[in-house]
Amino acid sequence: MKSNKKLTLNDLAKLAGVSTSTVSRALSDNPLIKKETRVRIQVLAEQHNFSINTAASRLRTQKTKVVAVILNLIDHTEQSIGDPFLLKIVADLNQALNSKGYDLLLSNSFMATDNWANYFINSQRADGLIVVGQGKSDEKVQEVAATAVPMVVWGDPLRESSYPIVGSNNRLGGELATEHLLQGGCKNILFLGDPEHMEMTGRYLGYQDALEKNAVIFDPTFTVAIDITSRAAYEKVSELILSRGLFFDGIVACSDMVALGAMRALKERYVGIPSDVGVVGFDDILMAELSYPSLTTIKQNTQSASQIMVDKLIAQFDGQEVNSSVVDIELVTRQSTKHKV
Amino acid sequence: MKSNKKLTLNDLAKLAGVSTSTVSRALSDNPLIKKETRVRIQVLAEQHNFSINTAASRLRTQKTKVVAVILNLIDHTEQSIGDPFLLKIVADLNQALNSKGYDLLLSNSFMATDNWANYFINSQRADGLIVVGQGKSDEKVQEVAATAVPMVVWGDPLRESSYPIVGSNNRLGGELATEHLLQGGCKNILFLGDPEHMEMTGRYLGYQDALEKNAVIFDPTFTVAIDITSRAAYEKVSELILSRGLFFDGIVACSDMVALGAMRALKERYVGIPSDVGVVGFDDILMAELSYPSLTTIKQNTQSASQIMVDKLIAQFDGQEVNSSVVDIELVTRQSTKHKV
Repeated sequence: MKSNKKLTLNDLAKLAGVSTSTVSRALSDNPLIKKETRVRIQVLAEQHNFSINTAASRLRTQKTKVVAVILNLIDHTEQSIGDPFLLKIVADLNQALNSKGYDLLLSNSFMATDNWANYFINSQRADGLIVVGQGKSDEKVQEVAATAVPMVVWGDPLRESSYPIVGSNNRLGGELATEHLLQGGCKNILFLGDPEHMEMTGRYLGYQDALEKNAVIFDPTFTVAIDITSRAAYEKVSELILSRGLFFDGIVACSDMVALGAMRALKERYVGIPSDVGVVGFDDILMAELSYPSLTTIKQNTQSASQIMVDKLIAQFDGQEVNSSVVDIELVTRQSTKHKV
Repeated sequence: MKSNKKLTLNDLAKLAGVSTSTVSRALSDNPLIKKETRVRIQVLAEQHNFSINTAASRLRTQKTKVVAVILNLIDHTEQSIGDPFLLKIVADLNQALNSKGYDLLLSNSFMATDNWANYFINSQRADGLIVVGQGKSDEKVQEVAATAVPMVVWGDPLRESSYPIVGSNNRLGGELATEHLLQGGCKNILFLGDPEHMEMTGRYLGYQDALEKNAVIFDPTFTVAIDITSRAAYEKVSELILSRGLFFDGIVACSDMVALGAMRALKERYVGIPSDVGVVGFDDILMAELSYPSLTTIKQNTQSASQIMVDKLIAQFDGQEVNSSVVDIELVTRQSTKHKV
């Protein structure tokens, strides 16, 4: 059966005087193409009855121009998709993906059933995966890594792994936070967080590094293991003060949310910050600057990290191999700690 | 040309002893189907060499099982996708969509170029749109409403519109907030926010309602128009105190972020909260409870609102017409205001 002769993409490109990829992008309304060009090509396509639609184009090119971002939450913790730091990464990833012409499909480890490669890639929901967080186990991530599916993981980049990880130098961060408290005169410093959580382990080791370098004896009773939420921190610090009194003069918190929960408990009991207890957080979320006293913290540069993750993913689309990389961290000193004179 | 005889969806359903829609869902790994059933059907499909992929299924059914969530940001404001309240809605929408078997495609008004219906629906990126925020102009939303594209908007449900809006009773919220301050003894109450922003207009009118009902004369110099960010609030309140002294004893803030910025300015200048100035926010984000003093606020029930928005969208997929609806709000009293004795 002979079909009506139709204009090809090539024909349209010639008519418009641009490349076929420009035509294809213009027709999918890709913001990478200047608006005037897009409109001009769309009008031309309409005049010549040329149609293209994304689903058909997906079947042909096998590309969705969508990247799935999976929040790797842990069953038995209260840290949720509502966590401000996770949402900050989502927001930064969204901007980084948008700037490269990709849409962000938001998912989490509960929605995406066991086999991520199959759920997202084989069923053509997305071209690649960005997994946020390694959690306590990276089993599912390793499953994906065993396939050829493009993937980048936000996590601890210093850890041996079979997949590319982008993240902060957590151990250095933990050390800087603790060192800063020691320099300010703190002698009895709590580590408040979850030492078994992959990214937190590094921060905990850094806390121990700083103690050792300053010849402070590490006391395991100063390690306070809690769920990484502000509520858990608030409850635990309240309980510690009630049961044991103010036996500490510094807190290295494994995240800003944990630090903010701890600070609330201290303020309610009229403990001076930083006069009685200095507090350092980790992340630098919006609320760190906004709290009073404002929170000294280890800033994770999620904006730059997001751009790196997106670049590494796109490199994989082009068949390149990519490695893990470490994003710079920075100690941001604010009012919650005493500063060295 | 005769093709090899292949198993149809119907054949597979008979073999499995389930409906064709169950087979189809099982093959797309839809979490609505019990995991054992999914696995059983997937194994059966593999044994019989039956394959289905999402892109092909999209072409056939014209369904993507994806909903685009568009954050309707405004060019000339600093409120960004990083705003905690916007991100809270995204998180709640994600859970509501997931529970109905839909994935969430995150976008914003900068990424989605002018014609949303074309960008998302005609090019089959999504089955429908949820627009978060009406902003100062709903031009783009009205363009979509003029088409048959399924859409629900988070905004002011009491406003006349050609599309279904889900949102809080902002006017009542503004009134409750102001009334609460008046009952606590405040006499000179600022309205801090952007009265021209659609959802904020209602809150501003409610503020005026409460003043009128309590026979307090409305003074336009107590309306402080600012960009709706914590930074703008912080700077403006600092400036007001420096230039005019403490001429007010209450603040109705148009959002919690604005309230938290204002509170930081007050605390830095040793203004007592609530002893000197009472503060009420709007939204009830995580930080409202965590700040010290904790923030009295008008809680917007975004979790329930998200479920309603998703239900209304799915009803449109099924060809039903839907109306706007109002989600209950609630005054949550905390430490930032004096309470009536």
